[in-house]
Amino acid sequence: MVKVAICGYGTVGSGVADVIFENSDSIARNAAEEISVKYILDKRDFHGDHFENLIVHDFSIIENDPEVSVVVETIGGVGIAYEFTKRALLAGKSVVTSNKELVASRGHELIAIAKQRNLNYLFEASVGGGIPIIRPITQCLAANKLDAVYGILNGTTNYILTEMIQNGATFEEALHQAQENGYAEADPTADIEGHDAARKICILADLCFGRHVNPDDIKTQGITGVTLADVEYAKRLNCKIKLLGRAVRTGAETATAYVAPHLVSTSSLLSNVDGVMNGIVVHGNALGNAMFYGAGAGKLPTASAVVADVIDAVKHTKARKYLDWEDAPSGYFTDSSYLPSRWYCRVETSLQQIGWAFGKVNFVTYPGASGSEYAFATDEYDEATMLKLTGGMTVRSMFRIID
Amino acid sequence: MVKVAICGYGTVGSGVADVIFENSDSIARNAAEEISVKYILDKRDFHGDHFENLIVHDFSIIENDPEVSVVVETIGGVGIAYEFTKRALLAGKSVVTSNKELVASRGHELIAIAKQRNLNYLFEASVGGGIPIIRPITQCLAANKLDAVYGILNGTTNYILTEMIQNGATFEEALHQAQENGYAEADPTADIEGHDAARKICILADLCFGRHVNPDDIKTQGITGVTLADVEYAKRLNCKIKLLGRAVRTGAETATAYVAPHLVSTSSLLSNVDGVMNGIVVHGNALGNAMFYGAGAGKLPTASAVVADVIDAVKHTKARKYLDWEDAPSGYFTDSSYLPSRWYCRVETSLQQIGWAFGKVNFVTYPGASGSEYAFATDEYDEATMLKLTGGMTVRSMFRIID
Repeated sequence: MVKVAICGYGTVGSGVADVIFENSDSIARNAAEEISVKYILDKRDFHGDHFENLIVHDFSIIENDPEVSVVVETIGGVGIAYEFTKRALLAGKSVVTSNKELVASRGHELIAIAKQRNLNYLFEASVGGGIPIIRPITQCLAANKLDAVYGILNGTTNYILTEMIQNGATFEEALHQAQENGYAEADPTADIEGHDAARKICILADLCFGRHVNPDDIKTQGITGVTLADVEYAKRLNCKIKLLGRAVRTGAETATAYVAPHLVSTSSLLSNVDGVMNGIVVHGNALGNAMFYGAGAGKLPTASAVVADVIDAVKHTKARKYLDWEDAPSGYFTDSSYLPSRWYCRVETSLQQIGWAFGKVNFVTYPGASGSEYAFATDEYDEATMLKLTGGMTVRSMFRIID
Repeated sequence: MVKVAICGYGTVGSGVADVIFENSDSIARNAAEEISVKYILDKRDFHGDHFENLIVHDFSIIENDPEVSVVVETIGGVGIAYEFTKRALLAGKSVVTSNKELVASRGHELIAIAKQRNLNYLFEASVGGGIPIIRPITQCLAANKLDAVYGILNGTTNYILTEMIQNGATFEEALHQAQENGYAEADPTADIEGHDAARKICILADLCFGRHVNPDDIKTQGITGVTLADVEYAKRLNCKIKLLGRAVRTGAETATAYVAPHLVSTSSLLSNVDGVMNGIVVHGNALGNAMFYGAGAGKLPTASAVVADVIDAVKHTKARKYLDWEDAPSGYFTDSSYLPSRWYCRVETSLQQIGWAFGKVNFVTYPGASGSEYAFATDEYDEATMLKLTGGMTVRSMFRIID
């Protein structure tokens, strides 16, 4: 019998308790051992809760109980979550988490501590919620040289964009609806400004390319600037607007990453990932493209990923799972501005000026389009060049196009 | 340095040698040990081949070399592949394979031998080529009760159907084209009659539900009966015709599986899996639906999955990977005829007879449809009932509809 402590009894933490309780049979079969929750740490009491008797308020109870071999951290953020994770590892306990902020910013340091003590620090749930992605990348695709990873990493923004595309809702209406349906938080900043996606693409880049990328270093553009006009123009270019996190190897020893809205070709599978779902594409030199799709958030999907990691930690108490990346040498991380691609532009200017700047472009319009603006798709340019070429124009929107 | 022997130097086997050679750096990093090929077993000589000096013709050389710790079996079929796998395991070597026929029919027995000797028998490449699917099911989704798995498991038939749907090719034309492009073999029976998909869905059912399902027991219908008329009618029902393997839990201790053409709703992601690509949907009680997409066949994608297993075998020389299922108790496997679903029917009969049999149905037609037949979508019935209801009609096509 393996004893687990859950730190943080919020949405994911309570889901973890539920999944361990509900699926105890199949979990025991898969782990070859029974797993049960011994403590749930939270500041609050939960009178009348099914697991009320497991609630503790003092982390040192968990820290000092040798019977607890795995600690689940579902607190979120970096502060106390970081402290408890470190203390748990130093006390000889493996740690499993869904905390993308902590993994993206301090994961490398925590893995190093875990490694040193032959413990596991696992975080499948930190990217793509319930979608298996961390383990497929590190294990199943281990024979590939991975050169790109990108995808729809945030369900809230994908829900908002899908409402705009399918039902003609404005950004504000769609955001309001997302909040009413519980898909967006009261303060939606981390989602709509792309910070959540930025943390996730950094974790994916860390694992795919083996070097640390700091979320603070990458260009992050959210979806607040996306309008219904952009949605309509995109349709005419046979595209859908999606917020993508993207990381690309740019050379033998260089890589880049960023988050931004993209026009995604409707001929690609990724463009059909709608609503709150996530989809992640990985490109390997032997495999080509593979895509992983599923619920990127939500109590039970995310909890199921956490519990899968608990099972894995239990099965690997003696053989540490290999999951690691190195510090990036200076010059490794390059500015995404220099990554070329085709672009969609919506500008206010004259036809002549567009002609002077770009030569021939692919203009699009739609019934009801504003007469004072032009929208078009360009050939391949890097962002720095695009900024130069559109220098004299009033740029309303400028998004990369991806096939 | 870990020494590997490859048995069978065909498409996949030579791909394995290439991937180990080409990606040696990233493989060594992931396995935390260098891996190299010591022998390649084949009946033939390969004069002038890059790996010519590794060719041997006698399996006992491999069997008796204690330096070889992992044997890759890419021979295919059950006969000699079964014999060599067994002998390798008995000689204390882990075995990795892409051989779905062997895994589907004798996998359980070979796993038992591996287990007894604390060795690994791994077969990620047996389903979905390079797509990570076996490991995600057994590890990442281990906290879920899995209740259904289905998908496009055969690239050849998906290519043929895609050609029919997108370019109006007849089945014969599309098959011929598939053969010219190297996507179909000279004898395409195993693909177009659904036998290949049947083996794969059995392996998936084995792993998802934990009990052995014999490919010989499941109803297997290929795509030779699919016509351009069916393709056109399906379009009017907002569906695409896809050959699916499908396994479903039908009760606490029962399950069923089958292979058949389906009308797949175009609103589903699976319907957008086109050409030679595969897509596999897994449904878990906590996760909901997840989908895995990628190249389901091909030299390098498949080889990359084999080599990922080699890496895993190397990393788990002392701790066996848990990958297993039990013999099915009598009554476990149920006839798929009793699985209800909506149906698409194309029949020759009178309108009255359809009315008598089904009451109200959803008729469809298209310009150029044959005047002597009717096509329609029904409510939910099991197959046995459908056969009764259409008893007096000349049934041209009858396929399940799936959302």
